[in-house]
Amino acid sequence: MVNRNLRYPKFFIPAICIAILGVLTAGSAVSQMTDPLPSWNSGPAKQAIVTFVRATTDPKSPQFVPPAERIATFDQDGTLWTEHPIYSQVAYCLSRVPEVVAAKPELKDVEPFKTVMSGDREAIAALSMKDWEAILAATLTGMTTDQFQTEVQAWLGSAKDPRWKRAYTELTFQPMQELLRYLRSEGFKTYIVTGGGQDFVRVYSEKVYGIPPEQVVGTVGGTTYGYDANGKPILTKAPKLLLNDDHAGKPEGIHMMIGRRPYAAFGNSVGDQQMLEYTKAGDGARLAMLVLHDDAVREYAYGPAKGLPDTKFGTFPQEYYDLAIKNGWVVISMKNDWKRIFSFEK
Amino acid sequence: MVNRNLRYPKFFIPAICIAILGVLTAGSAVSQMTDPLPSWNSGPAKQAIVTFVRATTDPKSPQFVPPAERIATFDQDGTLWTEHPIYSQVAYCLSRVPEVVAAKPELKDVEPFKTVMSGDREAIAALSMKDWEAILAATLTGMTTDQFQTEVQAWLGSAKDPRWKRAYTELTFQPMQELLRYLRSEGFKTYIVTGGGQDFVRVYSEKVYGIPPEQVVGTVGGTTYGYDANGKPILTKAPKLLLNDDHAGKPEGIHMMIGRRPYAAFGNSVGDQQMLEYTKAGDGARLAMLVLHDDAVREYAYGPAKGLPDTKFGTFPQEYYDLAIKNGWVVISMKNDWKRIFSFEK
Repeated sequence: MVNRNLRYPKFFIPAICIAILGVLTAGSAVSQMTDPLPSWNSGPAKQAIVTFVRATTDPKSPQFVPPAERIATFDQDGTLWTEHPIYSQVAYCLSRVPEVVAAKPELKDVEPFKTVMSGDREAIAALSMKDWEAILAATLTGMTTDQFQTEVQAWLGSAKDPRWKRAYTELTFQPMQELLRYLRSEGFKTYIVTGGGQDFVRVYSEKVYGIPPEQVVGTVGGTTYGYDANGKPILTKAPKLLLNDDHAGKPEGIHMMIGRRPYAAFGNSVGDQQMLEYTKAGDGARLAMLVLHDDAVREYAYGPAKGLPDTKFGTFPQEYYDLAIKNGWVVISMKNDWKRIFSFEK
Repeated sequence: MVNRNLRYPKFFIPAICIAILGVLTAGSAVSQMTDPLPSWNSGPAKQAIVTFVRATTDPKSPQFVPPAERIATFDQDGTLWTEHPIYSQVAYCLSRVPEVVAAKPELKDVEPFKTVMSGDREAIAALSMKDWEAILAATLTGMTTDQFQTEVQAWLGSAKDPRWKRAYTELTFQPMQELLRYLRSEGFKTYIVTGGGQDFVRVYSEKVYGIPPEQVVGTVGGTTYGYDANGKPILTKAPKLLLNDDHAGKPEGIHMMIGRRPYAAFGNSVGDQQMLEYTKAGDGARLAMLVLHDDAVREYAYGPAKGLPDTKFGTFPQEYYDLAIKNGWVVISMKNDWKRIFSFEK
């Protein structure tokens, strides 16, 4: 018997071991074959994703992309989570105004703080862009980056959205969460590219989306390096806009923060046009998708494309829809393409 | 024989296979035990690195850092590669002036281009900061990001440094290359945080240091999104400074681009002070190190700390040396701590 064993070449033992291990661990291979996008209905949107992933990750594909170059960028508001009736960050800023006024009582009778303190929703909705800039400056700057993080964290832990009475971070779209995980499991690096504040989104991006802070590109305000009373280094958030990460600012922000052109980009409004154009202008297989909010029952319905109601937040006009079709961008119908929208749905 | 095999419990076969594979692949375990820093002499600098890595990566250590938070930042000029007699990027800008003048002949008789075209080294060295800004604006902006990348790549492929007559990218410090690889093998994400141009360094960072473009933080100029004559989206480099990534700009840039405080930071001059302070101000084990250029034979010698010659580039004054000692930053003596400096040394 010893002699018989000796006849096997040296590589045979590990080879057969690997074969046996392969059979015994076949369960994991089976799980890889299960649908990575269970909340997506079969249809052109889901098909476009799967086709793109195969084309870019199969080493035998002529459109194969090396793992280091697999970048996918996602708008946040309206693409990864609900943006109606107002952006979550705007709700945050409004919630901070009473504390700002408490610290500086002279603001109580000064606009726009007077209007915000009145709680008059119609008057708040009618505030001008200049008013909003004052609110943003008062609530998003002047504190250290550490203080800001603590304040946002506290708000996220207690604030509830007006419709479902849930934490804002529960209002992420389950199909997009699956898409993020699917792309990462296929070697893509997933980034958020949002018009929202970079520091704000970074507070929860890792926990909520599995996206680390360094992969969040957002609207960037400057910071100022200095020292606290004990001589400890601090960064103070300054009222200085370095990047308005919307429209043309999105590809500009992608270049600044990533330095590579994405292979896939996902958005939902006119603010995402340039990011999608820039993505599709690259060589090889590129995927550009837009979420259309056409489900008033399960979420919200707004366009005004396809006869949907008009909106002030996350506009998707008919000419934008036509541009998407012309450019080969895939429109995702929340109503038809998504089996469920939120993880808390039955 | 069949019966005897059946006596083994089900888990036995994979268990013994793993054991056999373990013995057969023991070579890799042995290689992990070899010195990851062979170009470093034994001494306090090398010891500080190894102690820090053990403290932050051993799960049983009270100072253990989860892999996602393991960020290490490296200055480039003078820390990862030679910065004397001039920064490589300055050599690049000077090399571009003839082409800029050829495209705009009216510049031929205008300062500072006239002086650069004269080739008079002393006069070039005496140019004012305003002159340099004009040279940088003329050679680093106005082209598309793609054109810029092509131009830098071409220069890197042909330009030689004045002393060793080698490509600039060969002048990286072998001990620091080993340190980058060592930290990455221990789960650290390595970043360059340089006063040099972010777009410039990103052209070669992956190839030269194994650091991908998205992990390069540098001085950032704005870009402008637009379309070429064929309607294809382009980004044009604009003469607009968004981040001066030096001194206080380094922690500000780290916050903007990474959003996490580093656990380890490496520099060589006064421009790195704030990055090192910011790094050490965090909780737990933090490593701050400075490279001292004290080897005129194998590289260059400048300080003026420790009686070394004074310099215009990469200043390391005596009071900075004293501050380092006071703050627990570890000074690396190139002469004493490094067995070899360049990979091309015998």
